[in-house]
Amino acid sequence: MSTRSPLAPAAFPALPDIPGVRAAVARARYKAWDRCDLTFVTLDEGTAVAGVTTQSKCPSPEVEWCRAALTLGRARALVVNAGNSNAFTGRRGRAAVEAIAARVAGAIGCMPSDVFVASTGVIGVPLPIDKAEAGIDAALAAPEASWEDVANTIGTTDTFAKAATTRAMIGGVPVELVGIIKGSGMIAPDMATMLGFIFTDAAIEPGFLQTMLAHANRRSFSCITVDSDTSTSDTVLAFATGKAGNAPLTSEEDAGADAFQAALTDLCTQLAQLVVRDGEGATKFVTVTVEGAVSDASAHRVALSIANSPLVKTAIAGEDANWGRVVAAVGKAGEPAERDRLSIRVGTTQVAREGLAVEGYDEAPVTAHLKGSEITVGVDLGLGEGSATVWTCDLTHGYISINADYRS
Amino acid sequence: MSTRSPLAPAAFPALPDIPGVRAAVARARYKAWDRCDLTFVTLDEGTAVAGVTTQSKCPSPEVEWCRAALTLGRARALVVNAGNSNAFTGRRGRAAVEAIAARVAGAIGCMPSDVFVASTGVIGVPLPIDKAEAGIDAALAAPEASWEDVANTIGTTDTFAKAATTRAMIGGVPVELVGIIKGSGMIAPDMATMLGFIFTDAAIEPGFLQTMLAHANRRSFSCITVDSDTSTSDTVLAFATGKAGNAPLTSEEDAGADAFQAALTDLCTQLAQLVVRDGEGATKFVTVTVEGAVSDASAHRVALSIANSPLVKTAIAGEDANWGRVVAAVGKAGEPAERDRLSIRVGTTQVAREGLAVEGYDEAPVTAHLKGSEITVGVDLGLGEGSATVWTCDLTHGYISINADYRS
Repeated sequence: MSTRSPLAPAAFPALPDIPGVRAAVARARYKAWDRCDLTFVTLDEGTAVAGVTTQSKCPSPEVEWCRAALTLGRARALVVNAGNSNAFTGRRGRAAVEAIAARVAGAIGCMPSDVFVASTGVIGVPLPIDKAEAGIDAALAAPEASWEDVANTIGTTDTFAKAATTRAMIGGVPVELVGIIKGSGMIAPDMATMLGFIFTDAAIEPGFLQTMLAHANRRSFSCITVDSDTSTSDTVLAFATGKAGNAPLTSEEDAGADAFQAALTDLCTQLAQLVVRDGEGATKFVTVTVEGAVSDASAHRVALSIANSPLVKTAIAGEDANWGRVVAAVGKAGEPAERDRLSIRVGTTQVAREGLAVEGYDEAPVTAHLKGSEITVGVDLGLGEGSATVWTCDLTHGYISINADYRS
Repeated sequence: MSTRSPLAPAAFPALPDIPGVRAAVARARYKAWDRCDLTFVTLDEGTAVAGVTTQSKCPSPEVEWCRAALTLGRARALVVNAGNSNAFTGRRGRAAVEAIAARVAGAIGCMPSDVFVASTGVIGVPLPIDKAEAGIDAALAAPEASWEDVANTIGTTDTFAKAATTRAMIGGVPVELVGIIKGSGMIAPDMATMLGFIFTDAAIEPGFLQTMLAHANRRSFSCITVDSDTSTSDTVLAFATGKAGNAPLTSEEDAGADAFQAALTDLCTQLAQLVVRDGEGATKFVTVTVEGAVSDASAHRVALSIANSPLVKTAIAGEDANWGRVVAAVGKAGEPAERDRLSIRVGTTQVAREGLAVEGYDEAPVTAHLKGSEITVGVDLGLGEGSATVWTCDLTHGYISINADYRS
């Protein structure tokens, strides 16, 4: 991994074991590197699964495989390949996914459709089947891996291992949730994102798990952007082993469903923010809040317009109180907005109100805020009740260096 | 001006005088710089005007002023201020525009609504009326300025003066067109762009001039992007003095209308491409062509998705044949696309066809093409007859330096 992001947490979190989940890692050597790059997770019988995947029109064969398997709602294994996304590889890419599922099904005694596969890395190169098969065989013989090993193994340009945990009570029964995630560039999830995996020992009916994951996704992964570039391989899967012993959740009427939804949304938000904190070249974590829009959806689009603006992102990188660039980003969003109702806040300082700079505007506290690493930009459109929050990072020389200076 | 863009033309072009047009420049000192920053153009009586302006929801008061004045179709003067866009300045900004129009109207004997005003520079600071008035007085007393002086005076972060010329025959009468333009950052025209000014001696009825300018705009300014950030102040105005002596053009049925439209579109395309060639930090001029889309509009949106992708733009900057990033940009565009019909060309090399890399793909000619400064990326979606071309530049350390390293 490269130099650890300055926005990374101090340490990898302490994570509980999730009964029914066992992970191993291996060296498939998809690239010329000496590190584990294949993750193999087995899941006990009865594990429910839900997932959200990229809305890209050019999805990887892994994404297509997972979509089909998700309709059955059951999972027994997960294989994650790092270093090659296998996207845009036609029949050969599809054959690689089928070979992996068949190998795993034969080894652990399940249906191929019980095996979920995700891959991340360069686009356009078929995943080498021989390396994948050898890696799976090695993982089958390997000792159990820690969550930190797993979180490191699924990463590519990530500079730190990312994971989070939450818990909830369902009908008096405590359940645990653990999530791991990778991603730092090509991040602009369109209803789904990156590679993220969530494990819980709660018992949840697959259809309802899907409903809850979709809800959490809208509030978390769909609210982050690093560079506006949606990936071909974005996938988040949630696995529920049912080992906690709670009465299975089947609908939002069930006792504990609210608590689990809140814990799941919290977990997804933590994971999503970790991806932004590892945004390529990032030196500032930026929270953009839009209020007063005609709808939440409109607020979300305005917030993304600000968060994706290269000029806003470079101004923040340069600690430049150039809030006019926020005005321009609101103006170009294509959403209802009226210049003379627009107010802007940076940190806790109101910089503009109702279409112009506030009387006696003092730049000093704004500049001081921008020197920190946790930046907030607030916009009030003054039109309605719609609101949204989006998280992003600044745009720096580091991003250019990572993506232009070296051949990928 | 900063270091001249490596993509700049070798020299400023030779431009004809346009009868009925007289320009002067002056130092209003909108910023602490020792250069001319106010342009004052007088136009003989009978000059028709047409214009296109930004679709931003936060337009500058200059844009609002021009929109109102354009409904009358007649012009006698143009004032351009560089160094302060006067955008997002409320009543005080509006007052500055009204003061400029009144000053000019009094001096040359016309209606304030005959005076067109455009400003470019920092957002959020009201244009100082005293400096504007003193600048106008100085310009009134100044000798006639050359086109090159004018093109330099309207610039801000531009690294070279930009102008172009074309001509056409209308009913046996030759007419001349000259255009000048400024812009290099905050460039993603949404139906209009930057500050551009076109002068012709042709006689054209204002409504028909507007029709022809709108058509030319769709094929030129709306087809360029530097950084996806649409400005608050984008304005292109076309002035027709009628001094050439042709029978006035009033509709596309008129002899010579086709020829003038072609010349106008050609001129606008030249000007638009000059802006891209001065894109902030640009080292490569990139032509993105999309064919086989379900419609021209769909092709345009896919082409912009590619041209605005930070990952595509940094790959080109890095001379990296990473065409998978083009796949991702097509996939995220939200337009009809099918992975397994998608073909991609870089330079003259077919790199992918029908959803995967071509058999025996050789990266060498692609890498060689990327080492040049004129890059072409071609995409065939394989779905229909829609096509579009968009021009952009690469994304480099230079862009970050211009927008983050120094306070604006």
